[in-house]
Amino acid sequence: MTRIGIVGGTGYTGAELLRLLLVHPKCEVTCITSRADAGTPVATAWPSFRGFCDLKFCAPDVGLLAECDLVFFATPNGTAMSAAPELLKRGVRIVDLSADFRLRSQTSWEQWYGMAHASPELLETAVYGLPELNRQAVKQARLVANPGCYPTAVILGLLPLIEAGVIDVGNLIADAKSGASGAGRRAAILHLYGEVNENFHAYAVDGHRHHPEIVQALQFVAKGPVDLTFVPHLLPMFRGIHATLYGRLLTAVPDVQAIYQQRYASHPFVRIEDTTAHPDTRSVYGTNLCRVSVHTKKPDRVVVLSVIDNLTKGAAGQAIQNANLMLGYDETVGLTAPPMCP
Amino acid sequence: MTRIGIVGGTGYTGAELLRLLLVHPKCEVTCITSRADAGTPVATAWPSFRGFCDLKFCAPDVGLLAECDLVFFATPNGTAMSAAPELLKRGVRIVDLSADFRLRSQTSWEQWYGMAHASPELLETAVYGLPELNRQAVKQARLVANPGCYPTAVILGLLPLIEAGVIDVGNLIADAKSGASGAGRRAAILHLYGEVNENFHAYAVDGHRHHPEIVQALQFVAKGPVDLTFVPHLLPMFRGIHATLYGRLLTAVPDVQAIYQQRYASHPFVRIEDTTAHPDTRSVYGTNLCRVSVHTKKPDRVVVLSVIDNLTKGAAGQAIQNANLMLGYDETVGLTAPPMCP
Amino acid sequence: MTRIGIVGGTGYTGAELLRLLLVHPKCEVTCITSRADAGTPVATAWPSFRGFCDLKFCAPDVGLLAECDLVFFATPNGTAMSAAPELLKRGVRIVDLSADFRLRSQTSWEQWYGMAHASPELLETAVYGLPELNRQAVKQARLVANPGCYPTAVILGLLPLIEAGVIDVGNLIADAKSGASGAGRRAAILHLYGEVNENFHAYAVDGHRHHPEIVQALQFVAKGPVDLTFVPHLLPMFRGIHATLYGRLLTAVPDVQAIYQQRYASHPFVRIEDTTAHPDTRSVYGTNLCRVSVHTKKPDRVVVLSVIDNLTKGAAGQAIQNANLMLGYDETVGLTAPPMCP
Amino acid sequence: MTRIGIVGGTGYTGAELLRLLLVHPKCEVTCITSRADAGTPVATAWPSFRGFCDLKFCAPDVGLLAECDLVFFATPNGTAMSAAPELLKRGVRIVDLSADFRLRSQTSWEQWYGMAHASPELLETAVYGLPELNRQAVKQARLVANPGCYPTAVILGLLPLIEAGVIDVGNLIADAKSGASGAGRRAAILHLYGEVNENFHAYAVDGHRHHPEIVQALQFVAKGPVDLTFVPHLLPMFRGIHATLYGRLLTAVPDVQAIYQQRYASHPFVRIEDTTAHPDTRSVYGTNLCRVSVHTKKPDRVVVLSVIDNLTKGAAGQAIQNANLMLGYDETVGLTAPPMCP
Repeated sequence: MTRIGIVGGTGYTGAELLRLLLVHPKCEVTCITSRADAGTPVATAWPSFRGFCDLKFCAPDVGLLAECDLVFFATPNGTAMSAAPELLKRGVRIVDLSADFRLRSQTSWEQWYGMAHASPELLETAVYGLPELNRQAVKQARLVANPGCYPTAVILGLLPLIEAGVIDVGNLIADAKSGASGAGRRAAILHLYGEVNENFHAYAVDGHRHHPEIVQALQFVAKGPVDLTFVPHLLPMFRGIHATLYGRLLTAVPDVQAIYQQRYASHPFVRIEDTTAHPDTRSVYGTNLCRVSVHTKKPDRVVVLSVIDNLTKGAAGQAIQNANLMLGYDETVGLTAPPMCP
Repeated sequence: MTRIGIVGGTGYTGAELLRLLLVHPKCEVTCITSRADAGTPVATAWPSFRGFCDLKFCAPDVGLLAECDLVFFATPNGTAMSAAPELLKRGVRIVDLSADFRLRSQTSWEQWYGMAHASPELLETAVYGLPELNRQAVKQARLVANPGCYPTAVILGLLPLIEAGVIDVGNLIADAKSGASGAGRRAAILHLYGEVNENFHAYAVDGHRHHPEIVQALQFVAKGPVDLTFVPHLLPMFRGIHATLYGRLLTAVPDVQAIYQQRYASHPFVRIEDTTAHPDTRSVYGTNLCRVSVHTKKPDRVVVLSVIDNLTKGAAGQAIQNANLMLGYDETVGLTAPPMCP
Repeated sequence: MTRIGIVGGTGYTGAELLRLLLVHPKCEVTCITSRADAGTPVATAWPSFRGFCDLKFCAPDVGLLAECDLVFFATPNGTAMSAAPELLKRGVRIVDLSADFRLRSQTSWEQWYGMAHASPELLETAVYGLPELNRQAVKQARLVANPGCYPTAVILGLLPLIEAGVIDVGNLIADAKSGASGAGRRAAILHLYGEVNENFHAYAVDGHRHHPEIVQALQFVAKGPVDLTFVPHLLPMFRGIHATLYGRLLTAVPDVQAIYQQRYASHPFVRIEDTTAHPDTRSVYGTNLCRVSVHTKKPDRVVVLSVIDNLTKGAAGQAIQNANLMLGYDETVGLTAPPMCP
Repeated sequence: MTRIGIVGGTGYTGAELLRLLLVHPKCEVTCITSRADAGTPVATAWPSFRGFCDLKFCAPDVGLLAECDLVFFATPNGTAMSAAPELLKRGVRIVDLSADFRLRSQTSWEQWYGMAHASPELLETAVYGLPELNRQAVKQARLVANPGCYPTAVILGLLPLIEAGVIDVGNLIADAKSGASGAGRRAAILHLYGEVNENFHAYAVDGHRHHPEIVQALQFVAKGPVDLTFVPHLLPMFRGIHATLYGRLLTAVPDVQAIYQQRYASHPFVRIEDTTAHPDTRSVYGTNLCRVSVHTKKPDRVVVLSVIDNLTKGAAGQAIQNANLMLGYDETVGLTAPPMCP
């Protein structure tokens, strides 16, 4: 069994990693850290895991983590960038679920994340872990920057049309809606049940950290500038992202659906639904799937619906997909259970 | 007291009319109909009203309704159009909350609603009851077509920029999200708790009945063709609509905020929030308010956030606002309670 | 207009007081405090009140509060007990929504609340503000201890049978369920959306602060010892308490329903529903009602269902009911709007 | 692979059976029926299964079903009792998730279910499929009556104390709360999102079909009469049952916790939590677990908290547990995934 470490085990993505890895046939979590809860059984912090997991949290000690083959960082931004160099030096592979290595530009990163980057030299070598875009690079990678949740849904939804060169990249709109788990498990008034329940609103209309991340990927694909308006919203539910994507086709495209089907034919986690479908977030609940449907509207408009589970394909599931690739396993190992339905 | 009739008292908009009218200082509900529940106390169908309302449902008899000064139709599409002529002849004012009189074009109406129109001659004389657009006409009206919920949120959000001629009407996008009450109180699998809860999806991407209604109003304002992409979504909550509206400014506009504030200065139910605000649906819960915030983004994009309670400003509240105008009362009578907060 | 102060305006009960008082015909909030937000407009902390309230929060200064006729404390436990003596001395009436004056016994209070009581001399003179039990005393009171939310639902549900002497007070069971607003608006992991949504559990089975409060009231009524098992539970919703109460009748009671109807005949906020009814929390949403139904089961069991809105009859609404009585107004002034239904 | 049939594939328990069986290593669903949707792909009715299941619904034809080794009935009451005899004759094992074979007494069954029983002769031979009570009998059974959801939670919670003879069976109280999925997937106003969301109430206080089923089992264990008051409630969430059970200990029991631990030591799906725990429904979400905690209170009261997922241990999971036993597999095969957490 491959030895796995999880740094940051008390948040929602840490728990989702654990949920998936507990039944992963090739991997075994040998070390899970929590600075605050070191020494406490995981099953105390997460009663759901009583009877499933006998581990105790340990302090995030480099020596312990170095005994792992691969370490996931499910930490707030700013942690992985400090610990990565030493672990890499000791031969440990890393998948970072935080934003520390997602942007290529140090300047842009420091501007959006409001701190100095501790390991700017790694920004170039880190691989952006969207396997549907970078599968070969991920296989070779020692350090993978796991994409953000919104970027995963938006990029997968727009990728085929941009690659095919048939969409006006000068006016893309991504109206995205996320379940409350996207905000993490931080004690803040804003995230209380009483604030989220039976309520809905947009946020960060004037700028969100996932915007430069999305644009970086889309520009890489477009090989040129991309203008994207991105508006995130908070849903009164826990899991799920729904991105509604709007664009204009540059030319008459005989079969948009075929473009999508061909693009993702070899990618098991992206499913192109019928052209009349409205995929719902429930249909990916707890899975690593991205379901996409493409609607064209006269004369030249295209509306793409893209849904993921933000904790799975948008975080922990995709991280395991990346780890599988890095470790030489089949991409889908441990990620094949159907969604909790209904 | 003005004598009020409600046709269709067992649905959500019928109940919302009753909730508001029970404390309206000028109006008294004297007749509330339900074909299926005739003879049954309203408080049996709606236990919430036990102790507040002693009425019994009656059959929808024209003679009884003709004793009212004004009748609200809170019925499925196709009912009001049959009953309206006789009531109007007998001098009864009508506010129709269904879609029967919302479209000017008989052809378009029959196409979208899939039936022959019973009173096409009234389509011309019915006033589209968006007071912020048609206040004077509403005051004179005998028959008001109360706007749909999505149209109310979208039109109020786009109106000022179109009137001012500063937005490209050739590429408007309305991404709208509605609480589950918008679907009415019909026994259908789709609307079960188990289907709506912890779930989110778009619907009717390929065509929704509110699309021609919105376009008709926007074209009236624009005095020319308007191209609008409209995508509705279903929220896992009960009350509230949030419309996120995207457009391109045609010219440099020095103060977009001022355009909105001036446009609605004399309209008490539209509140322009700060340019950095993200109004939430909770902030209009149970009220007749539409809260709007306007965000401009470099170089020429504008994002407008518009929220209403779909049962109040999107249905029953706006109907009472219209009735107040038709009856010569102050527009706000009976509609001044603050939102249920939080 | 009576001048009203609210100490503690950033919590849920503070907001509920404000929502109700903004449309109270006899009272005007002239002062609302928040130590942290002093100087900030109330409408900034509560965007729902934008356009309804122009007040700014002020610091909790005794001089300012002393200009009020009556002050509500919507503060954490331990605040009112320090401020009360000075305000009372200056002639200000007080309704304390916290627990500071609810228990007669200083020893018991200090044991359950884990601090020394700052004004033990007031424990005797404070009136327990359950008007259905103590209406005359409330009218004379200068200092009212507003009951807890669970105690309100449980006491009102059991009162008639205990007063009538027909129930075995040696084995009462109260299984109570509360919406999440009961926990207040504190930033704690436990109260995050992700922890409450789609989840349900009991808590404090081994002892809850409302237990001694309920027992004190029931023993006062029973004029002797009462044995009550009380188990609270947390519901995945915001407002509402449902208490399911179990007991054994001591004798054959010909008409239990009549006992309840007579007991509450002169109490406008308690409504006895049919003996086959199952009142739901929605039917009291936002109101000061307690709806009760009484079910008898062979041979001698009784099950009482009692529902309130914990923020209204369980907190702010009852506080205003008490204030109305203290100020000589009709008990129901400002509290007559029907529930938000559905 | 064992050939499995599912009769009734469009309801929630049918879908849950499918979700679990799609990844069951020993079983394969070869036939899934729906009278209304025969010929339609399962993935059309359940978009969540697109990509996971290629089956089409077939009509409930005995010939087709007879080719299966074991058939699950996930049908409304009244269906299995007609089809069972022929299938049994043809050698097919049956697990019936409906109530058709749960009561031993034909008279009682017909009274509670309001119809004549089509196969009363099978009532005696059907095994009540609560493996923690009847494991050996289930192993030999050809026809298993899968327990109701409430009965599973209540019986497992009370069983050890009754078997040990230490609880007063003359006054047991079960206050039970269920998620909305318990009502099935029927188009009824009562089960609409708008009726369940942000609401809570008791129902069937005067008699629920699960009451005789629970009492039958408890009396079997007690070997004598049992008096149980049972009150079910509807929770605003989808999955989960929480039973709060109240009783009186007959004698001083030195270690109640040990009684539970010993009783379930060999039963992998029942987990006895700490004596201070409050197990939440989330901790069993999607699993076949029953988590129980036992609280004793002075002088002689006991409060037992018992939680299950009503669709899994309360229906489909337990049905598979029974099938595993009938087919000679390990009881836990296909049922070991941890809960969706959080």
